[in-house]
Amino acid sequence: MNSHTTITGSGSFIPATVKCNRDFITQEFYAEDNERLKTEPQIIVDKFLSITGIAERRYADKNMTASSMGIIAAKRAIADANTDPETIDYIIAAHNFGNVCATSTQSDAVPSIASHIKHGLGIKNPNCIPYDILFGCPGWLQGVIQADAFCKAGIAKKILVVGTETLSRVIDKFDRDSMIFSDGAGAVVLESKATNAGIIGASAQSFTLEELNYINMGPSYAPDAEHGTIYIKMQGRKVYEFALKQVPLAMKACVDASNISITDIKKIFIHQANEKMDEAIIKAFYKLYELPAPENIMPMNIHMLGNSSVATIPTLYDMVCKGELPEHALHAGDIILFASVGAGMNINAVCYRV
Amino acid sequence: MNSHTTITGSGSFIPATVKCNRDFITQEFYAEDNERLKTEPQIIVDKFLSITGIAERRYADKNMTASSMGIIAAKRAIADANTDPETIDYIIAAHNFGNVCATSTQSDAVPSIASHIKHGLGIKNPNCIPYDILFGCPGWLQGVIQADAFCKAGIAKKILVVGTETLSRVIDKFDRDSMIFSDGAGAVVLESKATNAGIIGASAQSFTLEELNYINMGPSYAPDAEHGTIYIKMQGRKVYEFALKQVPLAMKACVDASNISITDIKKIFIHQANEKMDEAIIKAFYKLYELPAPENIMPMNIHMLGNSSVATIPTLYDMVCKGELPEHALHAGDIILFASVGAGMNINAVCYRV
Repeated sequence: MNSHTTITGSGSFIPATVKCNRDFITQEFYAEDNERLKTEPQIIVDKFLSITGIAERRYADKNMTASSMGIIAAKRAIADANTDPETIDYIIAAHNFGNVCATSTQSDAVPSIASHIKHGLGIKNPNCIPYDILFGCPGWLQGVIQADAFCKAGIAKKILVVGTETLSRVIDKFDRDSMIFSDGAGAVVLESKATNAGIIGASAQSFTLEELNYINMGPSYAPDAEHGTIYIKMQGRKVYEFALKQVPLAMKACVDASNISITDIKKIFIHQANEKMDEAIIKAFYKLYELPAPENIMPMNIHMLGNSSVATIPTLYDMVCKGELPEHALHAGDIILFASVGAGMNINAVCYRV
Repeated sequence: MNSHTTITGSGSFIPATVKCNRDFITQEFYAEDNERLKTEPQIIVDKFLSITGIAERRYADKNMTASSMGIIAAKRAIADANTDPETIDYIIAAHNFGNVCATSTQSDAVPSIASHIKHGLGIKNPNCIPYDILFGCPGWLQGVIQADAFCKAGIAKKILVVGTETLSRVIDKFDRDSMIFSDGAGAVVLESKATNAGIIGASAQSFTLEELNYINMGPSYAPDAEHGTIYIKMQGRKVYEFALKQVPLAMKACVDASNISITDIKKIFIHQANEKMDEAIIKAFYKLYELPAPENIMPMNIHMLGNSSVATIPTLYDMVCKGELPEHALHAGDIILFASVGAGMNINAVCYRV
């Protein structure tokens, strides 16, 4: 039996504050040209729901940050793995904005979020190495790919990978895309073990020509916005077309690298970016094999949790493992696929045997 | 002959704007308690020079950012390696603050600095994966350790590792520690090759109990500072004592892991943090072997370039390779040691055969 990098525990932190779509009805929205949107607010919100599938999202409490949420998710993953935190070799924290206080626009990642998490876990072992990875929304899954590489290279056996983000602190409230974004944290413990369960293949791709600015930072759409302050911005149409074309190909590259058949896949955990887009990606992925997308292949939590960037996949995986989405139970030996896409533009996929 | 991860090219970018110590004579400095320092400005600056060895530092021009400096260093490293950028498997960008505009306090790392560098290099290959690592000042050297792991895991053969930072954009000018910090970028191309030259050992350590806040972000020392804005802050005495105790031990761990003798080491490239501290570390390192520190073992450029965080070691290495510090020439077969320490607190070391 070969050694595999196996998930031995998962955990997540879902902030308590619920922000409903109706909370945006009183918000003035502007377009990129600073012109106020003329559509009725209720119609904007209804259209938003029908495209993205997002009815609610969660915002972190004022006293919380990416690192404090990450610590909670990490503690839960470690408890679930029933492992001694002092035996962890690496802590990889994926995020894109560091800690942003509720009252500031500044990012703080000195020391790194992973160092904060190690501190929060009370780990004394100096050989436990914490670092942060920035890779857009696919950062958590890329951290998993790096963890697998460290196991294969023989420099680690047990790795904590955390994704944590407070997007509510970096949105332009005058941009209707702000309704997409959410806060949260998810984590897994990965261990190199002599078992058939674990990572069986991975792929990653990056497109940085004109795609570089499909998701980036830019000024508010409000005509009287404070000069110089920047917010997360998305060229929604271009992101959609890009993802629909490239993500299925990257997923196929991962399946091919894993020496499995498309029909072996029992569940696909895809970055919760936009429900309609995710459904279209899955359909296009199966179309590459001239197959229809199977029913019930894709667990989703975007309806209630929105898009929390790096946190979506580990949170979704944790919910499924804990039986919170009972129609998506996993069984030993099941083959599952993780896939993500985001700023860079970056794409990745991991094929995993439960 | 075994395969090794070998540096095949290096490059750096040193900003043109020189900021001399005398430029600080007119600056009001305050202590942590917001009390104005009563010492004569000339005496503060003279004492600073005698401890840190820093006479000048470089600041990036207003129109430049961490990513634009990183692109220049990367282009030079790629030209030096005489390699086709389309054949690079990974771009690892180390920094701690992302892009900070000259007129802003906000960090911007969406998309990542590595994505910006890939864009600037015009690389089309979607299999070239760019990501950022945050690991304090030792981030560039940790990127080198990760590159070596990816080569050993068989997922990469050619990796560009860039360190780039504009510390001039995150300093509190009312804090005399601001005189330490500088801007710059350095880069190397690493390739997995069947050669005896290359990385022969590495070690990394992290201390995150009380050490977490030895270097962090905090408010200005000025009594009338804008509320809520944060700057890089350092508990200088604690950093000094920590580094003096822990860095020599981490360097020894690296030497032991590399199966070489202390007397094999020809040069030590240490993070340019503070001249007196670096000298004390080297002395303590050799003392662990009951040896005096050899003459001329440690190339230094801190006098003219200050502390540019992640950029110090690759810049120093590039200057030595290009013959800009003629008393520190490297020869094939020489064994050299890289070592760094910084926010986290993190420490690392790499043993390398030229």
